[in-house]
Amino acid sequence: MELWFSEVQTPHVKFSVRVDRQLYSGKSEFQRIDVFESPEFGRMLVLDGYIMLTEKDEFIYHEMMTHIPMAVHPSVKNVLVIGAGDGGIIRELTKYPEIAHIDMVEIDEQVVEVCRKYLPQTACRLDDPRVEIHYEDGLRFVRSRENQYDLIIVDSTDPFGPGEGLFTREFYGNCNKALKEDGIMINQHESPFYDEDAISCQRMHKRIVESFPISKVYHAHIPTYPSGHWLFGFASKKYHPLRDLNDIAWNMRGISCRYYTTTLHKGAFYLPYYVEEMLENVE
Amino acid sequence: MELWFSEVQTPHVKFSVRVDRQLYSGKSEFQRIDVFESPEFGRMLVLDGYIMLTEKDEFIYHEMMTHIPMAVHPSVKNVLVIGAGDGGIIRELTKYPEIAHIDMVEIDEQVVEVCRKYLPQTACRLDDPRVEIHYEDGLRFVRSRENQYDLIIVDSTDPFGPGEGLFTREFYGNCNKALKEDGIMINQHESPFYDEDAISCQRMHKRIVESFPISKVYHAHIPTYPSGHWLFGFASKKYHPLRDLNDIAWNMRGISCRYYTTTLHKGAFYLPYYVEEMLENVE
Repeated sequence: MELWFSEVQTPHVKFSVRVDRQLYSGKSEFQRIDVFESPEFGRMLVLDGYIMLTEKDEFIYHEMMTHIPMAVHPSVKNVLVIGAGDGGIIRELTKYPEIAHIDMVEIDEQVVEVCRKYLPQTACRLDDPRVEIHYEDGLRFVRSRENQYDLIIVDSTDPFGPGEGLFTREFYGNCNKALKEDGIMINQHESPFYDEDAISCQRMHKRIVESFPISKVYHAHIPTYPSGHWLFGFASKKYHPLRDLNDIAWNMRGISCRYYTTTLHKGAFYLPYYVEEMLENVE
Repeated sequence: MELWFSEVQTPHVKFSVRVDRQLYSGKSEFQRIDVFESPEFGRMLVLDGYIMLTEKDEFIYHEMMTHIPMAVHPSVKNVLVIGAGDGGIIRELTKYPEIAHIDMVEIDEQVVEVCRKYLPQTACRLDDPRVEIHYEDGLRFVRSRENQYDLIIVDSTDPFGPGEGLFTREFYGNCNKALKEDGIMINQHESPFYDEDAISCQRMHKRIVESFPISKVYHAHIPTYPSGHWLFGFASKKYHPLRDLNDIAWNMRGISCRYYTTTLHKGAFYLPYYVEEMLENVE
């Protein structure tokens, strides 16, 4: 039997993956949720028709969202994670014994339930005693927080649908307020390549630049995301992602990664000229 | 009308592009040649069903193959380019006035004719007086050359079909012999991500390591190639791609690029851990 899942990456580009079986299909209050088993990528989580993660390449996204700030900030104790219902960011964060508490704010409880059942590879650390899950709107949650977190990781879906509020100026301002005076905010920053994604990218960067004194963008290769070229934002009140990188300390921890290294960390901030130009145009 | 071109990237993954028109379709002695006009990528050259280049992202591949060695080697006068019938590498090389002569060896004359007619964006400098085109097998051409070139760029197709000979130990050994004592060889090095490509990648790296004292791999984001994560090989008798990078001299030239910068040059050699490991396993 031929069974193919296709993601419409742009109106003119489709990415198709052969599927063995659909393991789950449901509709929550917020979105359609599907889980597929595929020979190339293992299990895949799909929200509203968009691939959120696959077992084969999720390590790239989750390592790059987590270890980049952890190798820069000298002492992370309190973390806020917004979105991230699949648990991948939590799995990486719980590798650090010095982290005392993680607030995870996911709007859609059904995503967490589905991931616990079908995606143990990412959901495996959601029961860590340091993790407190809040089923709430991240935008609302962060409004009431002040001077509380060392690190905020915004693992949002795309800038349309249920994640839309996580791309507003108000949200970034509230994240700034919720961070301590040396806090860092990391967010997934879309792709620079296709026109529509590039526009989101510029809009986000403009808003973050207006909300934080230090705002840098870094990139990684994520094969199952549109164009495979994905950006992340590093916004900070004090630490610079390269000047304050403590590679010796990070390497002494002995955390094993498959994508991240402290050398790659540096290269991740060296962007192609067309991306630099796109970002500078809104700075 | 819906007209889609699909590339079978692996037996389980397809990448599909909406097409306005098929501008050319023909069969040469060596391969099937197609040119499509597409709304997302502009014109696309497809050989035996595989995308060789698109007008939207060819700059990435051609800049990364050309400017990386040109920013390292202090004095490139004689260049050999193997493959490259589309002219993209030639376009980048002819930006350097100090290059005196370029031998371009393309096995398939029909590819050059088709690109001249349908892809002027890349073929635009094929008539530069410094360029001498040889319609020959690259493997055979390089056998008879000795101590002649400062730079060899191997812009091959994939390690099957007409380009197969350009991935053999014999070929790399002959390239070494054809280079002067401080020469550099650059080759397209496939992708590390999908299993089959990763195996080709390892095999090539092993053979190049055995043929050259310095052999490093670098990467770039090329959205229309499988996985978007593409590798290149930098093999050299003398110069190191980072220690011998002369960024001041290169930037003084004022060559305008859209992907390459001398900062990105450094980051391009900082590879993900899984890629480093894959390469080290065969060193």
